[in-house]
Amino acid sequence: MTGSELVRGERNDANGPFLAAELVRLGFDIGRIVIVGDRPDELRGAIAEALSADVCVLSGGLGPTHDDRTLELLAAATGRRLRVDPHLEVEIGRVSRTIAEGLGRPYADFEGGVVKQASLPEGATSLGLAGTAPGVVFESGGTVAIALPGPPAELRRLWPHAIESDSFRDVLARILPRNHRVLRFFGPSESAVARVLEEAGGEAQEAEVTVCARDFEIHVDLYSDDGAPKRAAALEQALREEFGAQLFAEDERPIEEIVFTLARARGLTLATAESCTGGMVGARLTAVPGASDTFLGGIVAYSNPVKSGLLGVPTAVLDRFGAVSAETAKAMAEGARTALGADVAASVTGIAGPGGATPGKPVGLVFVHVETPAGGEQLRTELPGDRERIRGRATAFVLHLLRRVLTHTGDHSV
Amino acid sequence: MTGSELVRGERNDANGPFLAAELVRLGFDIGRIVIVGDRPDELRGAIAEALSADVCVLSGGLGPTHDDRTLELLAAATGRRLRVDPHLEVEIGRVSRTIAEGLGRPYADFEGGVVKQASLPEGATSLGLAGTAPGVVFESGGTVAIALPGPPAELRRLWPHAIESDSFRDVLARILPRNHRVLRFFGPSESAVARVLEEAGGEAQEAEVTVCARDFEIHVDLYSDDGAPKRAAALEQALREEFGAQLFAEDERPIEEIVFTLARARGLTLATAESCTGGMVGARLTAVPGASDTFLGGIVAYSNPVKSGLLGVPTAVLDRFGAVSAETAKAMAEGARTALGADVAASVTGIAGPGGATPGKPVGLVFVHVETPAGGEQLRTELPGDRERIRGRATAFVLHLLRRVLTHTGDHSV
Repeated sequence: MTGSELVRGERNDANGPFLAAELVRLGFDIGRIVIVGDRPDELRGAIAEALSADVCVLSGGLGPTHDDRTLELLAAATGRRLRVDPHLEVEIGRVSRTIAEGLGRPYADFEGGVVKQASLPEGATSLGLAGTAPGVVFESGGTVAIALPGPPAELRRLWPHAIESDSFRDVLARILPRNHRVLRFFGPSESAVARVLEEAGGEAQEAEVTVCARDFEIHVDLYSDDGAPKRAAALEQALREEFGAQLFAEDERPIEEIVFTLARARGLTLATAESCTGGMVGARLTAVPGASDTFLGGIVAYSNPVKSGLLGVPTAVLDRFGAVSAETAKAMAEGARTALGADVAASVTGIAGPGGATPGKPVGLVFVHVETPAGGEQLRTELPGDRERIRGRATAFVLHLLRRVLTHTGDHSV
Repeated sequence: MTGSELVRGERNDANGPFLAAELVRLGFDIGRIVIVGDRPDELRGAIAEALSADVCVLSGGLGPTHDDRTLELLAAATGRRLRVDPHLEVEIGRVSRTIAEGLGRPYADFEGGVVKQASLPEGATSLGLAGTAPGVVFESGGTVAIALPGPPAELRRLWPHAIESDSFRDVLARILPRNHRVLRFFGPSESAVARVLEEAGGEAQEAEVTVCARDFEIHVDLYSDDGAPKRAAALEQALREEFGAQLFAEDERPIEEIVFTLARARGLTLATAESCTGGMVGARLTAVPGASDTFLGGIVAYSNPVKSGLLGVPTAVLDRFGAVSAETAKAMAEGARTALGADVAASVTGIAGPGGATPGKPVGLVFVHVETPAGGEQLRTELPGDRERIRGRATAFVLHLLRRVLTHTGDHSV
């Protein structure tokens, strides 16, 4: 990935993650993603390293100006000269003429850039144009080198041409296809999962495992060679035995989508009553396209008068147990069911900090409640971390309690 | 940046751009950002290269599991041994115990991880904890090595400690001090800002400018050498002349904090009524610590019955103008003021897509309204992008309309 705006952190690189995910899907192991600026020495070094891999994909630095140096340096690194591709020169010239007319500028301003952009390393194949920059592919010393334009939309347009090229197909044929399994848990810690994996024999050449905490869930990715599935199966089995009850998904669907699938299957509508999360649960639920067929709405009750006025939490409950209590959480969920006319309502109240702690009620104390026509379930937890983490984790607890309740709730019982 | 989920493209790296921008702000040139997975050889290679720079910042790989190898490899690369820091062991143990209790898991599951996470390269200074992972800093062969935890919130919390460390101050003292000015605009496009800068002479060696769209605002950073402030001043002047009305901040405070400062100064309470954003405005507002003194709550009205029932939007308005209309937005804000008993209420209704468009009402159409005791202001906009971007941008529009209304609203008029 090349571009000064990327290396300065002004813009996040979208191409590296896209290309990496694509290559993993095709069965490659990713060595590294490197982001360099326009300085020739840095770019030269990165290209030299990348050429030691089976596939080296470069993005950016294909533009018309002097600081676009990718092809020049790639040619030098592979001992090739740059040659103007006459067919490409005509194509790029046509696009540039349209741009010049649109800007009301003389075409002469563009001519040097056209010749530069049509100059490819000898032996390279053009992947076609997106904008004025071409993508190119060629094979050099066992490595397939691919250069693509930096604008993400252009890169994504040319990428399919790259993987259909003969050079790329050759390298694909050389690598072993790998299996990929995903197991997602809510509850166990990252280290408990790691310990179980270790005790089951740990990872090996033919069965790679990664354990990662993401959105307060534990994601386990198991990669195994097609020819040797046993080791990966043993690791998976160990995890299922130890954490079966906390295993909630075997794909990458976000938890909010899982909640919707469950609620829709049972024909149940949803509502929320939020205090410390301030709307985060509603925001997550409504991120799902078409949420309005199931999610009716919510009440953010950030003050006691709103809790009692709109959610009908009795002032006696607030006075006796406090706004952060099991009793208030239950009354909030019940109140949300009534006020919003929903089948199922989830509530959350807690102390996100940094202020607000009282004796017996530390920062991080959170109550979550889900009320259904068949009754309620709730949990109390003390969450570590700062305000942002406590709120994020409390939101995850709400979504996972919804998931659990909706999983256990048969059609007959509601 | 280390983490298999990053190098496989499953998650975008947020730390690299953040650290790069921070280091640029402090006057450093960034050589490269490298993303590697958990494989020791790749990580070892990346660390060796990074140690040739003045500052080498590593993020991630500090967790409790076997595939968290950053400190082990950093110690090896600098010829140090790992030693358990007894003070840190106690601290990490305390945090882990809270987590174990919260999860209802035996602490024994965590013990190995605690010892691992408390093991630092000899001579390294702890930067404190965020979560269970410590940040560390030490100087080795003229390079300041900094290792920070991978979760972005934890990294951002420990980063200020890193730049205040003695080792880092020493290297800072060796580089030229630079002035840094921030100008933040809401409204103009990135390319319009870039054009004005170009016409005013553009950037130069002694005055570097970066323009960047972030959270739907345009952030302009002007860096100038202490000895040559004129060029930067000319660029700033040109921006002020062209976009003065859209310049809303000259520091990095989030817009939600600016809204609270304005509301508190006028003694006004706030409430929200959200449709397409589903709680995102409330979530942003309540991210501010102590929000409860000003923000009373909100209603997420995702269905028409909730709009009419809880917000009192007349069904005649919904029937005649539709849920996505100026009239409904106004009625929602008025209803939120009444229902929540707030001085000022902001509402938003729109079509986030991908479905839901009707003739004359395309995906991206959004109405935002702010109602105060002195009357209302509203705007209609058509936002580009997918569901996530439309919702994010609509949220930004609400916060900026609140800011604008609260800026114009003198104490006397409300």
